[in-house]
Amino acid sequence: MNQNPKILSGTELSSAVFSKLSNRIVNLKNKSITPTLAVILVGENPASKVYVRNKTKRFEDLSLESKTILFDQDVSEAELINKISELNSDVNIHGILVQLPLPGHIDSEKILLSINPIKDVDGFHPYNLGHLAAGVPTFIPCTPKGIMRFFEHYDYELKGKHVVVVGRSNIVGRPISILTSLKKKYSDATTTICHSGSKNIYNYTKVADIIILAIGSPNFLKAEHIKNGAIVIDVGINRIIDSNGKPILVGDADFTSLKNKVEAITPVPGGVGPMTIAMLVENTVEAAEKLTKHS
Amino acid sequence: MNQNPKILSGTELSSAVFSKLSNRIVNLKNKSITPTLAVILVGENPASKVYVRNKTKRFEDLSLESKTILFDQDVSEAELINKISELNSDVNIHGILVQLPLPGHIDSEKILLSINPIKDVDGFHPYNLGHLAAGVPTFIPCTPKGIMRFFEHYDYELKGKHVVVVGRSNIVGRPISILTSLKKKYSDATTTICHSGSKNIYNYTKVADIIILAIGSPNFLKAEHIKNGAIVIDVGINRIIDSNGKPILVGDADFTSLKNKVEAITPVPGGVGPMTIAMLVENTVEAAEKLTKHS
Repeated sequence: MNQNPKILSGTELSSAVFSKLSNRIVNLKNKSITPTLAVILVGENPASKVYVRNKTKRFEDLSLESKTILFDQDVSEAELINKISELNSDVNIHGILVQLPLPGHIDSEKILLSINPIKDVDGFHPYNLGHLAAGVPTFIPCTPKGIMRFFEHYDYELKGKHVVVVGRSNIVGRPISILTSLKKKYSDATTTICHSGSKNIYNYTKVADIIILAIGSPNFLKAEHIKNGAIVIDVGINRIIDSNGKPILVGDADFTSLKNKVEAITPVPGGVGPMTIAMLVENTVEAAEKLTKHS
Repeated sequence: MNQNPKILSGTELSSAVFSKLSNRIVNLKNKSITPTLAVILVGENPASKVYVRNKTKRFEDLSLESKTILFDQDVSEAELINKISELNSDVNIHGILVQLPLPGHIDSEKILLSINPIKDVDGFHPYNLGHLAAGVPTFIPCTPKGIMRFFEHYDYELKGKHVVVVGRSNIVGRPISILTSLKKKYSDATTTICHSGSKNIYNYTKVADIIILAIGSPNFLKAEHIKNGAIVIDVGINRIIDSNGKPILVGDADFTSLKNKVEAITPVPGGVGPMTIAMLVENTVEAAEKLTKHS
């Protein structure tokens, strides 16, 4: 049993990311450029509103700009595409983010496709996802990119390790399964992707060196489902009611159960979440740099 | 022991594909359209020449057109890109294929990027690879697409099965690892990707329900490396000298060793190879249909 597990703090690591970015931001500001993110938010989804507020607040803290463009729930696809097209041409906008999920009558795929890939700081455009799959990443989706930073920062070499990813979303599971198995430093793992169609997921987690959870199932993974000394990265953010009737946030990992058996684990909150936002800022700064070079 | 393994004949299955395509080809010809493939071949690589001849021969057999454009080994990137740009605009060309590998002084990535994705019948452009990774495939690379046809044709449901892919090339390993784990019928497997950075690959193949080999290592997989009743798909095509000093083609699987232990296996030659060419034809017909619809 490992009695001194490492709690991988995303709050701490994201501060280090912001410090490192400050030079790049100053360089841009010296050229009168303020990295600016446009966020499209449709409807009244309370979770989406919280996510967007958290993201934009971080931009303000760093003296960067963000503009949130609100649309009613019944907005048409054409209206959204028109707005995105306007943002694509706007030289003062460097990153464009469409907060998901969109209402059912909107084809999300079509909307994402309308974003100019060079401003797609979320990395969800097939052009960027395809570059990732081809091993020549352009914009990497923020959550997977943030996860890789934990491995790099704490010097966890993945080469030859068995990574088990639980979840296959385009936002987390799919890209992190690709990223961890690329032929690159801090990657190069043998990676298994599990999902809703898998049988006996715990048979896979039990033999994994590193487990990445992204399914949104509270306390899905417990001590009996891992081997000693595994590393657990928890992307889940689930709102549940605790035994005192208080609403709390928990991950897909049962932190209390796992913490004495793991080599390292990310907490919820304060683990992957802050890194996702840090990578969004980093991608926006990168977009501003690229667009400046191209102009 | 399974004494009646199924030999999955790509020669037979590809004939069925061509029969099914004949209606679509007639429909196009009735509109005076002959699906036409342009192949760019650089230098004197003998294997590439054989591959290209095999591909173009099949087009001729089906009264489709193919044009092979030869370049010297020392051609410049700019010349290749100019030619591709010309082919992109040519309404009589529906598919464009650049035979890989290209000489070292050429950036293959840049060349592939210059192909209009709607004519990218090899499915290697990041736009098409990204659509695949996002679960909304456009053009699927021919070899992985051909492999999926075996599962569909022989009604092997992958849902909940453990697929182990050996190899992570952009042409086979990476796309088939994505395809097998999409949420779709005849897909939905738990997929592990192994490669040159993996440790103890046989530990993974030993527990796999389906093994897909794409590493180019003669007779890499033997009976002791699989469980009873596994399905083996062999993408390897290796030229070796047999015990009589005769040059022969063998796969990555040791067919003789495996054939009594597997549920099914693809032979080499006559397995995956013919399906790759069949899918190239199918993708070119599809491109001709799409381009006609768009014009």
